[in-house]
Amino acid sequence: MDTKTRLYVDHDLGPGQAVPLTADQAHYMFSVMRHGVGDSALLFNGRDGEWRAKVAQAGKRGGIMVCDQRTLPQRGLPDLWLLFAPIKKARTDFIVEKAVELGVARILPVQTRHTNAERIRQDRLQAHATEAAEQCGGTLVPEVVELQPLDRVLAAWPADRRLLWCDEALAGQTAGKMPGNDTTSPGPWAILIGPEGGFSEGEQARLRTMPQVHALCLGPRILRADTAAVAAITLWQTALGDWR
Amino acid sequence: MDTKTRLYVDHDLGPGQAVPLTADQAHYMFSVMRHGVGDSALLFNGRDGEWRAKVAQAGKRGGIMVCDQRTLPQRGLPDLWLLFAPIKKARTDFIVEKAVELGVARILPVQTRHTNAERIRQDRLQAHATEAAEQCGGTLVPEVVELQPLDRVLAAWPADRRLLWCDEALAGQTAGKMPGNDTTSPGPWAILIGPEGGFSEGEQARLRTMPQVHALCLGPRILRADTAAVAAITLWQTALGDWR
Repeated sequence: MDTKTRLYVDHDLGPGQAVPLTADQAHYMFSVMRHGVGDSALLFNGRDGEWRAKVAQAGKRGGIMVCDQRTLPQRGLPDLWLLFAPIKKARTDFIVEKAVELGVARILPVQTRHTNAERIRQDRLQAHATEAAEQCGGTLVPEVVELQPLDRVLAAWPADRRLLWCDEALAGQTAGKMPGNDTTSPGPWAILIGPEGGFSEGEQARLRTMPQVHALCLGPRILRADTAAVAAITLWQTALGDWR
Repeated sequence: MDTKTRLYVDHDLGPGQAVPLTADQAHYMFSVMRHGVGDSALLFNGRDGEWRAKVAQAGKRGGIMVCDQRTLPQRGLPDLWLLFAPIKKARTDFIVEKAVELGVARILPVQTRHTNAERIRQDRLQAHATEAAEQCGGTLVPEVVELQPLDRVLAAWPADRRLLWCDEALAGQTAGKMPGNDTTSPGPWAILIGPEGGFSEGEQARLRTMPQVHALCLGPRILRADTAAVAAITLWQTALGDWR
């Protein structure tokens, strides 16, 4: 029995439930991992926890798994969003993968004044998020939304969602520390990572006027955007999230 | 004047000092960045701080910069080592780059029982470390040492160097939190990141007997080795290092 193969499925899970596999999942299960009828894998769908399931039918373009036993209860994620300006493809993929492993609930690529990437492939990034959730043992796949202009996102910013602003221009400055929290729920939060070229003056001015914003300095060196994302999520999870 | 081009040079720096460029540096300065005679760049050598220097001669296979003014004092790094088991090439490169940005003094690739990589290109990883130091504004380039067996490294482990042990097998467990420190110098430390397959039972048993070892849990999800490295260095820098 291989309990290391985990698949996200868009199907109900429960005792004796039969679950069809997509062509991609069948290829992965039967060609890449070389599983066959009777072998096990772990399934999750974002609602019903994690289930051990056995292969009942194996084909080239599909297959059927049958749920056996629940192995994990459904677990939520802290109500944390990540906003970042997409950068080079490999680093953007990396940010999505790391954000899922570290535990964010929603990933929002934003177009800033100095963002280089004109567009992103939302479907590709969502597939990366799914793969990362399968790998890290989570029971939820965070949503990756379409690229939106930062201005528009900030204009509709929820009054109760705090925003941790990490900007490379703050490197070496004595910006605020990560706020602590003694209560169980820190409430809704988001992390905003600046683009490689930093935020424009207009963007900075706007962020400074928002009462939800908390500026955070990430040490004395200049971090790349992908490093800053991982560091900021780590600090948030330790202070306010589910690493406490 | 472009102060964004930063180069590490193995040469003395000081007022009016002439500094020769290597063929690679000349290619970068004059072909990639399109700088010419009279243009400026920033130089550092790990000893004399950061200097603004002007191009005095530009050639295809070399060039000469002349130091103008010191722009940063020499800054040290916290006495933190990173030990990790090399993984796939892209992720190993990533760990080295991130460790430099986040601020470690020495990078030690270690061969564990379950390490897949048989060998690494130490010279290539050292070049990555140099590039990351140039990019992040540091004035030191951390040393990347040759791959060594973990057993041998632990057998000669300094009595006064504490070791933060981050293992994916600890995911979700209530291992110790990051220790805090109120004094200016936390003393020598190291971070040990486990290989993808985890540490062997023998390695775990050995680590448990070492009085220098402090186990750290990095949240409820299973992190890839590269994510764990960035998260652990971030937590160390915030609690004990130069992000305080």
